Amino acid sequence: MRQIRLNAFDMACVGHIQHGMWTHPRDRSTGYNSLEHWVSLARMLERGLFDGLFMADILGVYDVLEDTPAPSLRNAVQIPLIDPLALVPAMGHGTTHLGFGVTCNLAYEPPFLFARRMATLDHLTNGRIGWNIVTGYLDSAARAMGLSEQMAHDDRYDLADEYMEAVYKLWEGGWQDDAVIRDRATGIYTDPAKVRAIHHHGKQFNIDAVPLWEPSPQRTPVLYQAGASDRGRIFAARHAECVFVNGSTRANVRRIVDDLRARSAPRPMQAFISIAVVTGRTEKEARDMMEDYRRHASVEGALAHAASSLGIDFARFGLDEPVRVTGSQAIQSNVEAITASIGPDWTTRQLMDRFILGSRQPPIVGSPEQVADALMSWMEEADIDGFNLSRTVMPECLETFIALVVPVLQARGVFKTAYEPGSYRQKLFGNGDRLPTGHPADTARWRPFSIMPAVFDHRR
Amino acid sequence: MRQIRLNAFDMACVGHIQHGMWTHPRDRSTGYNSLEHWVSLARMLERGLFDGLFMADILGVYDVLEDTPAPSLRNAVQIPLIDPLALVPAMGHGTTHLGFGVTCNLAYEPPFLFARRMATLDHLTNGRIGWNIVTGYLDSAARAMGLSEQMAHDDRYDLADEYMEAVYKLWEGGWQDDAVIRDRATGIYTDPAKVRAIHHHGKQFNIDAVPLWEPSPQRTPVLYQAGASDRGRIFAARHAECVFVNGSTRANVRRIVDDLRARSAPRPMQAFISIAVVTGRTEKEARDMMEDYRRHASVEGALAHAASSLGIDFARFGLDEPVRVTGSQAIQSNVEAITASIGPDWTTRQLMDRFILGSRQPPIVGSPEQVADALMSWMEEADIDGFNLSRTVMPECLETFIALVVPVLQARGVFKTAYEPGSYRQKLFGNGDRLPTGHPADTARWRPFSIMPAVFDHRR
Repeated sequence: MRQIRLNAFDMACVGHIQHGMWTHPRDRSTGYNSLEHWVSLARMLERGLFDGLFMADILGVYDVLEDTPAPSLRNAVQIPLIDPLALVPAMGHGTTHLGFGVTCNLAYEPPFLFARRMATLDHLTNGRIGWNIVTGYLDSAARAMGLSEQMAHDDRYDLADEYMEAVYKLWEGGWQDDAVIRDRATGIYTDPAKVRAIHHHGKQFNIDAVPLWEPSPQRTPVLYQAGASDRGRIFAARHAECVFVNGSTRANVRRIVDDLRARSAPRPMQAFISIAVVTGRTEKEARDMMEDYRRHASVEGALAHAASSLGIDFARFGLDEPVRVTGSQAIQSNVEAITASIGPDWTTRQLMDRFILGSRQPPIVGSPEQVADALMSWMEEADIDGFNLSRTVMPECLETFIALVVPVLQARGVFKTAYEPGSYRQKLFGNGDRLPTGHPADTARWRPFSIMPAVFDHRR
Repeated sequence: MRQIRLNAFDMACVGHIQHGMWTHPRDRSTGYNSLEHWVSLARMLERGLFDGLFMADILGVYDVLEDTPAPSLRNAVQIPLIDPLALVPAMGHGTTHLGFGVTCNLAYEPPFLFARRMATLDHLTNGRIGWNIVTGYLDSAARAMGLSEQMAHDDRYDLADEYMEAVYKLWEGGWQDDAVIRDRATGIYTDPAKVRAIHHHGKQFNIDAVPLWEPSPQRTPVLYQAGASDRGRIFAARHAECVFVNGSTRANVRRIVDDLRARSAPRPMQAFISIAVVTGRTEKEARDMMEDYRRHASVEGALAHAASSLGIDFARFGLDEPVRVTGSQAIQSNVEAITASIGPDWTTRQLMDRFILGSRQPPIVGSPEQVADALMSWMEEADIDGFNLSRTVMPECLETFIALVVPVLQARGVFKTAYEPGSYRQKLFGNGDRLPTGHPADTARWRPFSIMPAVFDHRR
């Protein structure tokens, strides 16, 4: 069996997916705005040999429930929320091997600025940065940026395709690998003949510029994506190296993964699902802990989150009334996943029974052996490569996992006992630091620049 | 005499102002893309009780000399260059008191994204972030962002005024100081009645959004600015708390400072100039060191930098021919400063004699006592508050300054012997963490939000 990949799944906020957990006396999520909180987490994950820390992000507030942000504010449902990119340098300084996958919405920032930001993080982390490409789905985020609403779904992906073309050119196309000479004796840092300006003139973006940064270890960050719609899957298959799959059952996930791998072939693609794990030394200890956690769960918080994820204001239905999904507001791919999982005519109460302390899948609750069994059977039945472990009570949910489950997985030979050397991409795929030939970034790679003669002697 | 404020003046690149220094055998500037480089620097500055680390930035390449970026590339003149904001979290984690003033161009990023980025850094550093507001002056940066050239000078400041209004609303106007309750017992993190959406509808920006972040210690970062033109001074007087003044002589600087203080009164304003210091245990040691450094200076690098700063392609003139400044390309305020300093009909050679290892002012070279004398007379004669020390050979130029000059300044009672507690703003002005009333940010401050009733019990 292949090796299990493990990421911690987190967000730079108090309540990420399992809402209400911050009220648990042992929870430390309210420390989300301190650097020590994140550096300690990163070091713990590295001790546990996690592949990465995966950071979600949104740029708007969840305001669909009751048509107000009030329930999200009360329950700290992804608000307050700070910029996840800012956590990476401190965590990168405190660790050596851990990868960082950060969600960034490409809809609102010029490609040149964003490309420099990510290249900077790739330099500073020695090649440990990944990017979860999102185009956003919240009208509230669009209004924050000066638009009246989101672009239409498929238009967002067209824009995203052009954005990717632009950033590939900036990351891969400006500087040859040997452009930097750094020769103190001759005083030449960069050979100008090996640097060229990037010219991109498309429907959405125009760029005429020399990328300001020298090549970073990976050049292009490891690319993650989570497109579920048909258009989203075309995008994922074209660009992504790792995908997150939201499908409530193993069979559903497998269908999606098979489809994505077929579309991206022969380029390999790693697939992840998000899951919560509650474990203890024994099954009973785990179940008791789950009961304890459930007492701190917030129904209002879970509903506020689900309402925006699905585009449905549950306040318009009774708790036991079938939720009628009407056209334009609903986010179809997410609604379909719920219907596939619960069945037609599902109610708000059924949704909440399922979602409290879960997300697309109910949490795995059990002894370390039971958790290992469940993870391994997910891997086999759904043909996935690993998991984004979503947090419950922090940091004990991860401390427990690392202390109890990781040794079981190692004993079974399905989890590494030491990090491999190299960049995040090299660690994940074992095929070098750079994107492989065949990936669309390859067509953006450098060609020599016309040689500029020096008019002045460059040394006095 | 008032206390001297000291910032280190740096940039996330190899060559900042004194070009060619990276070729010196003891220079470590080529480590600019490693976190340890910056964390060590920040810790050294904190040991030396520096007020801040000030980071320059540009978004384009210097390509005016010979109409190509080749001279800048060869000499590493601010290229390669990475994102300075990414250095702050690691340095913030490694220090407790040091402030961080970071240059960010407001022309290309939506106010909402930028406001979250800076609020995040203010949270993570516990209120130690400052912002040097720039509108950019490089056509090469505009072309990187999809424009054919810069906006006209005064139009950039009009846009900047509206940008400031928007970010003040986002930083100051969304969340009341007591909005966050963080009560585990009731499960209420934020009181929604104390948070409101921001609505900004101006000529350039439209925002309808709840700021995603809770109030950070300073809310608005400490505001730096360096506007030299008349329009720039109006902007600085309106917004800035600290200004950088580029005027080659003490009398010039004093005129500018007097003018800025008169315009901003009664609000206090701190004024800084940038200067290079070369010191040793004796005057002879300092002069020998200066000679050693000069042997590594790059004329081509200095010219490439000056050509873009002034908007003049020196390759069109002989070395000893008066430089004719023709209209549209030239950056008038910078050209005027040179003419005021050297006199009319200056030549490229005269400029280089002045600029090699200096910038607007020649470097201060001398024993620790001589350096202290020079700094103190600058303070008195130009009525400034402190200095941005630009780097020569790093880190020895700062190590030497801290070891030799700081104790002399302390013995004379003009430099602190310990940090004051509090945020960057509190340390600088002693008047609290927030901008004072009377500052335009004050008008953006919160008013209560309409109370939203809860339809669902927020706890199960």
